[in-house]
Amino acid sequence: MSETRKTIKPEVLGGFRDMLPKEAIVLQRIVDTVRKVYESFGFLPLETPGMERLEVLTGGETDFNKSIFVAKIVRGVEDKDVADADWSDDFALRFDLTVPLARVIAAYPDLAKPFKRYQLGKVWRGERSQAGRYREFYQLDFDTIGSSSLNADIETIQIMYGCLSALGINNFTIKFNTRKVLNGLAQVVNREEKAKEVFRIIDKLDKIGPDGVKRELMREPDNQYDESALNMSEAEADKILRFLSIKSDDPEIILSQLDEFFSDSVGDGQVGVTELRGIALALDRLEIPRRHWKIDLSVARGLDYYCGPVFEAVLDDASELGSVLGGGRFDGLTNRFIADSNIAGVGASVGVDRLIVAMQKLGLIEAKDSLTDVLVTIFDVKFENESMQMAAYFRKAGIRTELYLGEDRTLRAQFAYATKKGIPFVVILGEEEINAGKVAIKDMAARKQEVLTKEEVLAKLVSSKASA
Amino acid sequence: MSETRKTIKPEVLGGFRDMLPKEAIVLQRIVDTVRKVYESFGFLPLETPGMERLEVLTGGETDFNKSIFVAKIVRGVEDKDVADADWSDDFALRFDLTVPLARVIAAYPDLAKPFKRYQLGKVWRGERSQAGRYREFYQLDFDTIGSSSLNADIETIQIMYGCLSALGINNFTIKFNTRKVLNGLAQVVNREEKAKEVFRIIDKLDKIGPDGVKRELMREPDNQYDESALNMSEAEADKILRFLSIKSDDPEIILSQLDEFFSDSVGDGQVGVTELRGIALALDRLEIPRRHWKIDLSVARGLDYYCGPVFEAVLDDASELGSVLGGGRFDGLTNRFIADSNIAGVGASVGVDRLIVAMQKLGLIEAKDSLTDVLVTIFDVKFENESMQMAAYFRKAGIRTELYLGEDRTLRAQFAYATKKGIPFVVILGEEEINAGKVAIKDMAARKQEVLTKEEVLAKLVSSKASA
Repeated sequence: MSETRKTIKPEVLGGFRDMLPKEAIVLQRIVDTVRKVYESFGFLPLETPGMERLEVLTGGETDFNKSIFVAKIVRGVEDKDVADADWSDDFALRFDLTVPLARVIAAYPDLAKPFKRYQLGKVWRGERSQAGRYREFYQLDFDTIGSSSLNADIETIQIMYGCLSALGINNFTIKFNTRKVLNGLAQVVNREEKAKEVFRIIDKLDKIGPDGVKRELMREPDNQYDESALNMSEAEADKILRFLSIKSDDPEIILSQLDEFFSDSVGDGQVGVTELRGIALALDRLEIPRRHWKIDLSVARGLDYYCGPVFEAVLDDASELGSVLGGGRFDGLTNRFIADSNIAGVGASVGVDRLIVAMQKLGLIEAKDSLTDVLVTIFDVKFENESMQMAAYFRKAGIRTELYLGEDRTLRAQFAYATKKGIPFVVILGEEEINAGKVAIKDMAARKQEVLTKEEVLAKLVSSKASA
Repeated sequence: MSETRKTIKPEVLGGFRDMLPKEAIVLQRIVDTVRKVYESFGFLPLETPGMERLEVLTGGETDFNKSIFVAKIVRGVEDKDVADADWSDDFALRFDLTVPLARVIAAYPDLAKPFKRYQLGKVWRGERSQAGRYREFYQLDFDTIGSSSLNADIETIQIMYGCLSALGINNFTIKFNTRKVLNGLAQVVNREEKAKEVFRIIDKLDKIGPDGVKRELMREPDNQYDESALNMSEAEADKILRFLSIKSDDPEIILSQLDEFFSDSVGDGQVGVTELRGIALALDRLEIPRRHWKIDLSVARGLDYYCGPVFEAVLDDASELGSVLGGGRFDGLTNRFIADSNIAGVGASVGVDRLIVAMQKLGLIEAKDSLTDVLVTIFDVKFENESMQMAAYFRKAGIRTELYLGEDRTLRAQFAYATKKGIPFVVILGEEEINAGKVAIKDMAARKQEVLTKEEVLAKLVSSKASA
């Protein structure tokens, strides 16, 4: 590095953070596991730029009100360069991976459909940073584009189940619902055009209770401009409350109560119940244990975007962290690029950062300071070639091997390094061992040292790795 | 997606690009392979933010003149928001992974040393975009921080060799040199304080030939302010040319000629030759074939940063693409954060994008439209449960299996999908097969269809995957 004028504080920006190896190892493990599940269902990786044209991100909507990062190029660091820089290119940092996916679908019409892609990527949001909320985070999405088949929705749940199982999580629940049932509910009380307002109020059930919900549903307009008032009759409000009381761990009970609820309705409700029934039947046939899934009519997941089944997964022992994996069926993905293209899609996204927090909290993932299987010490500079060759010998057999490279060459320092990094074995090649054609190996946890042939040492390392 | 006002062009920004699955699969394969090699030497992943404080990136240098991206937060898309946004936070996008590494080393003094980390990440540069040059690209670095041992330099070459071998590349050369020899050369002609100028001129050897180099070395100052003129005597210039003529594929020849060259010098030259000799001896002992490495005194790799051995790897059959992997030993990494900390380090970086281009050009990597092993068709909606269960059965055995999810349910369309994606096998479950407890499987390349039990089909898929 060239000469510097003053000392700079080695700090990250507010709302950003480092992942030191201990945490980055966990991230890698989660990503590798999830990717493998995605690929087992035929999903392929896609990479898109971290920056997009501002217009692509906003969709040209004048009421776009997300807080995002925009960027520009500066040369040098003079303030005037920054102020004079040209904004015309409209560099903007992506805030999710869905809009870039939509752009890709629109830009490459020749992609075979259904197009099944996954993507891991950083996204950036400008919201004020707060504890546990970052301005930069990972998303790990999978989506099936160009399929309206219910099988694609079922597959989405299979994948959620596959990911959480593969991560070694035993206690989780995938809750699902369909937007069609919720739309059907709004139709039953003749409030389809005010459906959003209905959902907004029923979403408050946990907070204000059934009486509060009923009061808000029946509220009369304050004045002639008050469009949010639903002004329901008591009978209408009671219908909503009856719907909200449909709860059970048994899908058949929910389905039969929904059948009854929508029995004299001809709207989306019955279609929705058919969807839920189809999903539940398939999950049974696929032998996905019922303790891992349930129909939950309170799952809505945002209101503009989804049009069919919606899903979310919570860890039973860390439900306060909310959903770690969620998604649903959407349409109109590419409409901002190709008018009325109305392409169908379904997918979900792993909340990677939240999942790391949850798994660490539940002790489901071991924090490691190293991935190394064995440290080969340098007993004396005279024998460093022997140590280097021994390390290469282990590596060739798939053993992750570190040759000690520290400045303090004492054996004490070399053992201290292995202890600090949690490396399970340490190998020593001193004059005695070399003359006898042997190697000393110390099992750090058992505090046991043996002198063996190099083949025996390798066998020991291989079997220890296999049982780890 | 909510209603949009106009249609947006689905275009990327100039200098940015998508990687569709065909290319993203190659990227993944390279990254996974390289990571595994890095980890086999004890390197661990590190993650740092895409954005840093501007001051961290520039080091507070007033003559910082790189072209980089700075960012700010905007709410909504009105121009006035952009213009009014607050720059005080100094968000800047990283242009490499080395400065963030330096910040991490300075910020977390408790990290065990040597600290061996690798990092894959996107970096952004504002340079004008041109063919094959992007404003966003991946870096995949590994560095050993806090070790001045020559063994760490040797290990760096071992890793470069390991990565290129693991990628299936047969013809590559790792060229190395040491900055100490180059410094020694400048000392021999008493131009140590003008070493950069000496290197700048000898770097032109290929372009202007020995005579041109000699002329430039001997150039007298144009006027009293002309500090670039070296004003060498003919004897001095001839010494430089003698150095430049030291070339051989045989390391011993180069080393003995260097010994002779520096025989009456007491500067860095002899130290440098000792380094080169130490590296060459170790590479022989580690049985890294000599056709894969050579001492090349023209390798310099930038002038401010490196202080010892420098390395770069070229693919012999695509040398015009330049180095695909390179690095060297540096010091003073953290000096901008901690004055005079002078921490030692060595590392290298894979030029991922360039490597992809080179491997594709040489046909070393197969372009695939899919990773899927088998497509399970849906013969009829009546049997879709059977198909779904069959797909789950294959997946459980590690076979990557797609259930057909397309809109066009004809068998012709299902086969066309498999053909377009290059999926090697297609499975059909029709009424006949189901009644007989059998499955039909078609080998798409061999155009051969068989009716087998599901266990036989699975065995076929497993053995085909194993031989792929």
